[in-house]
Amino acid sequence: MLKNKEDIAVFALTANVGMAEKIVKELDIPLGKIKVNHFADGEILVQPQESVRGKHVFIIQSTCSPVSEHLMEILITLDALKRASADEITCVIPYYGYARQDRKADARQPITSKLVADMLTVAGADRVVVFDLHAPQIQGFFNIPIDDMSAVALLAHHIKKRALEDMVVVSPDHGGANRARRLAEYIGPDTPIAIIDKRRTAPNVAEALAIIGDVKDKNCVIVDDIVDTGGSLCGAIKMLKSNGAKNVYCICTHGLLSGKAVERLEEAGLKKLIMTDSVPLAEEKKRPWIEVVSISHMISKMIEAIMNHSSMARVYEEYNGTNN
Amino acid sequence: MLKNKEDIAVFALTANVGMAEKIVKELDIPLGKIKVNHFADGEILVQPQESVRGKHVFIIQSTCSPVSEHLMEILITLDALKRASADEITCVIPYYGYARQDRKADARQPITSKLVADMLTVAGADRVVVFDLHAPQIQGFFNIPIDDMSAVALLAHHIKKRALEDMVVVSPDHGGANRARRLAEYIGPDTPIAIIDKRRTAPNVAEALAIIGDVKDKNCVIVDDIVDTGGSLCGAIKMLKSNGAKNVYCICTHGLLSGKAVERLEEAGLKKLIMTDSVPLAEEKKRPWIEVVSISHMISKMIEAIMNHSSMARVYEEYNGTNN
Amino acid sequence: MLKNKEDIAVFALTANVGMAEKIVKELDIPLGKIKVNHFADGEILVQPQESVRGKHVFIIQSTCSPVSEHLMEILITLDALKRASADEITCVIPYYGYARQDRKADARQPITSKLVADMLTVAGADRVVVFDLHAPQIQGFFNIPIDDMSAVALLAHHIKKRALEDMVVVSPDHGGANRARRLAEYIGPDTPIAIIDKRRTAPNVAEALAIIGDVKDKNCVIVDDIVDTGGSLCGAIKMLKSNGAKNVYCICTHGLLSGKAVERLEEAGLKKLIMTDSVPLAEEKKRPWIEVVSISHMISKMIEAIMNHSSMARVYEEYNGTNN
Amino acid sequence: MLKNKEDIAVFALTANVGMAEKIVKELDIPLGKIKVNHFADGEILVQPQESVRGKHVFIIQSTCSPVSEHLMEILITLDALKRASADEITCVIPYYGYARQDRKADARQPITSKLVADMLTVAGADRVVVFDLHAPQIQGFFNIPIDDMSAVALLAHHIKKRALEDMVVVSPDHGGANRARRLAEYIGPDTPIAIIDKRRTAPNVAEALAIIGDVKDKNCVIVDDIVDTGGSLCGAIKMLKSNGAKNVYCICTHGLLSGKAVERLEEAGLKKLIMTDSVPLAEEKKRPWIEVVSISHMISKMIEAIMNHSSMARVYEEYNGTNN
Amino acid sequence: MLKNKEDIAVFALTANVGMAEKIVKELDIPLGKIKVNHFADGEILVQPQESVRGKHVFIIQSTCSPVSEHLMEILITLDALKRASADEITCVIPYYGYARQDRKADARQPITSKLVADMLTVAGADRVVVFDLHAPQIQGFFNIPIDDMSAVALLAHHIKKRALEDMVVVSPDHGGANRARRLAEYIGPDTPIAIIDKRRTAPNVAEALAIIGDVKDKNCVIVDDIVDTGGSLCGAIKMLKSNGAKNVYCICTHGLLSGKAVERLEEAGLKKLIMTDSVPLAEEKKRPWIEVVSISHMISKMIEAIMNHSSMARVYEEYNGTNN
Amino acid sequence: MLKNKEDIAVFALTANVGMAEKIVKELDIPLGKIKVNHFADGEILVQPQESVRGKHVFIIQSTCSPVSEHLMEILITLDALKRASADEITCVIPYYGYARQDRKADARQPITSKLVADMLTVAGADRVVVFDLHAPQIQGFFNIPIDDMSAVALLAHHIKKRALEDMVVVSPDHGGANRARRLAEYIGPDTPIAIIDKRRTAPNVAEALAIIGDVKDKNCVIVDDIVDTGGSLCGAIKMLKSNGAKNVYCICTHGLLSGKAVERLEEAGLKKLIMTDSVPLAEEKKRPWIEVVSISHMISKMIEAIMNHSSMARVYEEYNGTNN
Repeated sequence: MLKNKEDIAVFALTANVGMAEKIVKELDIPLGKIKVNHFADGEILVQPQESVRGKHVFIIQSTCSPVSEHLMEILITLDALKRASADEITCVIPYYGYARQDRKADARQPITSKLVADMLTVAGADRVVVFDLHAPQIQGFFNIPIDDMSAVALLAHHIKKRALEDMVVVSPDHGGANRARRLAEYIGPDTPIAIIDKRRTAPNVAEALAIIGDVKDKNCVIVDDIVDTGGSLCGAIKMLKSNGAKNVYCICTHGLLSGKAVERLEEAGLKKLIMTDSVPLAEEKKRPWIEVVSISHMISKMIEAIMNHSSMARVYEEYNGTNN
Repeated sequence: MLKNKEDIAVFALTANVGMAEKIVKELDIPLGKIKVNHFADGEILVQPQESVRGKHVFIIQSTCSPVSEHLMEILITLDALKRASADEITCVIPYYGYARQDRKADARQPITSKLVADMLTVAGADRVVVFDLHAPQIQGFFNIPIDDMSAVALLAHHIKKRALEDMVVVSPDHGGANRARRLAEYIGPDTPIAIIDKRRTAPNVAEALAIIGDVKDKNCVIVDDIVDTGGSLCGAIKMLKSNGAKNVYCICTHGLLSGKAVERLEEAGLKKLIMTDSVPLAEEKKRPWIEVVSISHMISKMIEAIMNHSSMARVYEEYNGTNN
Repeated sequence: MLKNKEDIAVFALTANVGMAEKIVKELDIPLGKIKVNHFADGEILVQPQESVRGKHVFIIQSTCSPVSEHLMEILITLDALKRASADEITCVIPYYGYARQDRKADARQPITSKLVADMLTVAGADRVVVFDLHAPQIQGFFNIPIDDMSAVALLAHHIKKRALEDMVVVSPDHGGANRARRLAEYIGPDTPIAIIDKRRTAPNVAEALAIIGDVKDKNCVIVDDIVDTGGSLCGAIKMLKSNGAKNVYCICTHGLLSGKAVERLEEAGLKKLIMTDSVPLAEEKKRPWIEVVSISHMISKMIEAIMNHSSMARVYEEYNGTNN
Repeated sequence: MLKNKEDIAVFALTANVGMAEKIVKELDIPLGKIKVNHFADGEILVQPQESVRGKHVFIIQSTCSPVSEHLMEILITLDALKRASADEITCVIPYYGYARQDRKADARQPITSKLVADMLTVAGADRVVVFDLHAPQIQGFFNIPIDDMSAVALLAHHIKKRALEDMVVVSPDHGGANRARRLAEYIGPDTPIAIIDKRRTAPNVAEALAIIGDVKDKNCVIVDDIVDTGGSLCGAIKMLKSNGAKNVYCICTHGLLSGKAVERLEEAGLKKLIMTDSVPLAEEKKRPWIEVVSISHMISKMIEAIMNHSSMARVYEEYNGTNN
Repeated sequence: MLKNKEDIAVFALTANVGMAEKIVKELDIPLGKIKVNHFADGEILVQPQESVRGKHVFIIQSTCSPVSEHLMEILITLDALKRASADEITCVIPYYGYARQDRKADARQPITSKLVADMLTVAGADRVVVFDLHAPQIQGFFNIPIDDMSAVALLAHHIKKRALEDMVVVSPDHGGANRARRLAEYIGPDTPIAIIDKRRTAPNVAEALAIIGDVKDKNCVIVDDIVDTGGSLCGAIKMLKSNGAKNVYCICTHGLLSGKAVERLEEAGLKKLIMTDSVPLAEEKKRPWIEVVSISHMISKMIEAIMNHSSMARVYEEYNGTNN
Repeated sequence: MLKNKEDIAVFALTANVGMAEKIVKELDIPLGKIKVNHFADGEILVQPQESVRGKHVFIIQSTCSPVSEHLMEILITLDALKRASADEITCVIPYYGYARQDRKADARQPITSKLVADMLTVAGADRVVVFDLHAPQIQGFFNIPIDDMSAVALLAHHIKKRALEDMVVVSPDHGGANRARRLAEYIGPDTPIAIIDKRRTAPNVAEALAIIGDVKDKNCVIVDDIVDTGGSLCGAIKMLKSNGAKNVYCICTHGLLSGKAVERLEEAGLKKLIMTDSVPLAEEKKRPWIEVVSISHMISKMIEAIMNHSSMARVYEEYNGTNN
């Protein structure tokens, strides 16, 4: 239980208001009053409406679309809180945008993920909490403490309770093999994995797909951290189906579902998409085959741990267990 | 003339491409190739398409609407250029957004103008060039060199050549009295000024307007640094007219003309709006009574001075003279 | 009332010892023991004479004349306190010297006001408290919290209780119009303002003065943040008198009264100068027509708010009321 | 060809003297004179023996075993060069030690790879050149330019010229699937890949191995960035052999071959180990089945590009071609 | 007595485990659990085994031989603790290695002592505690609080209780004259000092020794901060003996005794070496004539003062007294 | 000879104008135009009067009395130069004030010497040149290059040419023994040294003096870095005389001669004081027995070395030779 409730303030900016309301309800504290104005000329003004002097303040905001706006809201809020003598500021960013721009993949590319880390630090963040970073190395882009929480155990629980037979966990690309193995371990000791093997046969020729591992007549569970426009996911689904897969499920932490993603996945025949609420799902994108699992309980437990100076390990153990 | 043309690269991001083309034409160099992608999920990727190793790079971009997007483009470009071993990077930001958020006007306000200065510096800017900052003190928000150029002499020239009689320069608020006096001096030694005196008579009562100074039967030239939604400018025009002003002109450096600004000013009976191209005027906002004066020549002269290590003072003198 | 008196230490350096004594008396704590030596060779040594380990320390010192010495005293004290493991250090600088050097007004000028802000921060200041900064934008020169308090309401109270008739508030220059309007609002809903309009008619010709607004047969109250050598104030007084002003009063927060200021103002016929004790008034400069209003009560209330983590807004409200 | 030979100095510390000699020979400049003393008490003193004032200095040193000593040598050299007014300092660190400690894999772990990046930057490095970083995200641990070169194309060339039939590229773990696919593309358009699938069946039970993909009767080429004690590589070899692999080759950029690695690999029946000289191979570890490919030519080309301000892309293209 | 025992954690790395155990025993708290691994490839991994969230953590580690390893252990631990949200971290470094490399004694030398200070600060240290720094100016290499404690009074007590007659304190070089005088004052008001006068008579000629002051038939007590290889100490002993000294004792804070130091001192006829346990004495170097005085009690008192926010002056007074 | 004279600008502030004029004459360049105003209220304004864009600028200014004013002049100039786009700024500070406040000699003391180093760096200095720092460790207070030049060889030359017989070099305190030995080596291979041995016999009892070494019938040359009020120097002279010294000379780099120093030394019977012009000697303090040796030639040689990127070692060698 949260000690010293008078020392904490939790503010929601515009991206995850619903989630923030669940969090403060679990913490049994009111949501902090804050005004966020977007003016006609495109500028933003954020003004906390209550004193934060000497408090530990939490900002809840994913940097999902519109990314630049959501990021600026956080930075401006940090500036305001710092100048208003907040004691410590923790940014809870369930979905950390720009995570995929984490290295120079080509000449003269930026590493925007590091740039964002530097911006947050300079603006005044003292600690950051995120979920399932695209690459765990992004933790090292920060010199302030960062808690990179994982929703994989929680999501695994939701696929396990379906008690599917003949499961195989599929990574949609080479880089996700580790994540696939980890999910397979959560599901059961003998769960096999398979990998979609995308390769470029020649310059300027479209990429060819193959599957390494056995998927025939299996219930395939593709796992990824982010589903964006759904392009490569659709490719994977088709490939699996043409190789005799029984059903194709997908588990992901961050469901951006940009553009026509929902329509494309529907068309490709995805059986089920299980994802968290790190990015809020727009009303018009809701579908019966999309299942949203909330991480608000995990966040409230984490805030409790930070405020009470208790170990975060406990929070994880609870989720590596069963009944969540 | 520009020396060492092989040591310079000029890139335009998305806000002022037209202006940048004029600038490089005057400098007799090609515009640098650069790719700016805005993805479906709202993220931005900027990739210079030519080597910048060891070069002095100039970025041309106003942070006008959409402010957050334009600012992020600059920051990401800075990150890319810094990592690509550019020798020195100058950001030319003709209109510096957020300039009006330059102090805590109320409890717990941010000073976003300083935040932006810190972001630019951390991302890698070595020098900044701006025009007519809302408050010249913003220069001190930077520890890198900043050139705060002024278009007032240039704009004054354009009102002077109309040879109006009985002119009075009007400041639309208390804070602009200095600017009004400066313009009046450019126009002629005996040009008087007047000030719109806005005051709050009681809490929760609308503000009352008055005029200090004489405007009856005069050609009034309101001067401001920024015209945003045009609200206070319309109030000033009506006040001047109801006090017997003959005609009302307006001079401003940065014409944002947000929302319904053009329609409102037309309705209020503004005779002429003379402004620079620091913020590009959208096609649908063009009107015969809006006159746009380009600052691209000034910027090209300034780039030349920076590259040739000659004094900037010369650039100004030219504009404080006559025939531009 | 101040909680946790054992966690606080208040030190006075050489500029405002009298004020500091009033402050600690109101806080009901002893003044911290500190030794400040100025040696024959011009060096300064500051040594706190009591343990500050883990305490929140307040330094009380205006950077008035001798400015460099007073500033060095603060910087050296910060270094000593930081190395002695003070927990948090707040610099209370009622008069912040160099505030007028806040922008490049001419080529190759320094922005000393920013330089001082950087020096304070690097030396170890965690928070700064000042009064009526020359330009509120100077707040943004700091990345640490700064409280820019205002004595205007307090001073307004002292002019209001004289119940003068036909008052007009006068700004001695264009830049002070805002301040004049603010004071006028404190005095009463219908109080008009006027502005001294200084202009340069030609290069190398002395500036000409005019008045915008009506001052004939009125009680004029000139308002300014700083009265230094009194030069422009004397010019304003004469101008007002030659335009038929009944009496001329002056209100200012920081009365430096450098050089022959007192004599000149006396000669110019200033009726009353109401100022705060942010800069101590030397014995030989005291006059019956100079009224000093102490801000020590405001500072003690502010220290209380900082220590008790209560809102500063309360402190202001008290002063926007009446009977202080 | 290198321009301005008088502006460059190249120093070798103790780890890669042989490689440095090859590099300066290719650049046609002398190796810089420097004294590196290791004293009886364990302290190190580095003293450049020639003036570096105004020069661009390159330090050549891998941070291989003894890691702490080699790293301290670099840091001390940076300090000496910085204080001796070197104009710019580039650290060429062919093998970047601690690269595998690049994230918190467990509670309270350090991210030593970031720590090292910060140390290099604070000590005075202006640019870093490395080879095949364990994770490319480590690039983002730096805010100075970093060139993460790759020896994979060069090594691929050395396996290709053997013209083996029925090749399959094998990743020894899930994390290396990307690297395996990249090597396969260098080798030929239809080269398949396979992955060693290591999994934990239950807590406190040894990990079980499986292979995803087909290796029977094939020439297997395991690819990894680092071969350290050879433990997991031996496991992979045995697994491949017991699954019918014809021959097992291994390609790696950094051959640490710590402890009994050479003996173990010999015993496991590795046919060939092809690696670079980023880490010098001790005399007693040389074997006929270990083939060392020098990267000194690549480094000299890269130094040339940096000094001549030409693009690095050219350097790579040469190696993505054939006859090196 | 230590207050709030739940807010503190004390960790020993590999250099001074024995001393750390004494310290925590005096503080009546358990020693923190921490794992320090040195891998086959020379890399180090440090992992605290208990939560440090919100705690004040003390690290106990001298940077004695192997210096680079011991220093890296501290830096890595700091990184781990900082990322694990420790509230404040104090490094207790009884022997601060590299202290003698504190200035450029020759062209292009590093100032490694400053480099180490910067490394500690960047890695996350909030405070440093050391003993008898080689030069007290090294305190100024830090901007964080540093406590440079002295063991001289404690060691003086141990020579005083021998009640030797005709004592003279000898400095083994010019730089130690101050230290010799300070020890002489602790021993008794009339204790004389002498100085070994080493000089270079010509370039490339061995240094000549002389003694300034009277040592004939006296009990000579050489005092130094560090005894390293014992070279100059042996020279001093022989010089004293050939000038008729009765017995030669030596007092030093840090007994490194590198290489053959013990054998050489024995041979030179040193009567007694009294030193602290800042550097642990290896079993094989123990001799009846070497007396080790523990500083663990001083350190525990100092930790108590830091935690309880009481003055350190008290800790010193106790040791400037008698019966320790 | 100085190359590229158009790339350099040398400015003198108020302390050493005469020396600066000699320096630029030797360099055959004009002295830079700069305006330094001290206003009635104690503020300072510095404005370079010529363009510095892209130049290497040297500031010549000792921080002698009035120390705070002289230091502020430098800091403000640095700010102005940095904002005016100077390429590189070197501060030549022949006498570095506050050098003696280089460590915490007592509880809660500042280390002002470090504070000044930090101020210079933050304000914009890129390199510092000083003479005979009180403690060479102060070099490590800077992370920018610092050249700590020595005038000792130059001064030694001036005492040597007097061809005195029976010379002994005397250190006036324990801390100066090193400096005395160094001077003795310059004078001749067999020159002995002696040390004034000041000691406190009991608390609150005046210090007692003694001499270690032989001075009877000798020509004593006291050497010190700074002569301030002359107090301890007078004590030394008297002590030497009462021990039979023939004549007493004094050599020092920095002759502050604060307060009544000249009178006191005259009275004490000092035969000759040889010092540099690092601190200008006021007209009223000039005496026939004070000989001032200029270091302007050394400084001009050093500026030449910095600009030409040649080694400083050469500059020293010239002075360690003979005929200067």
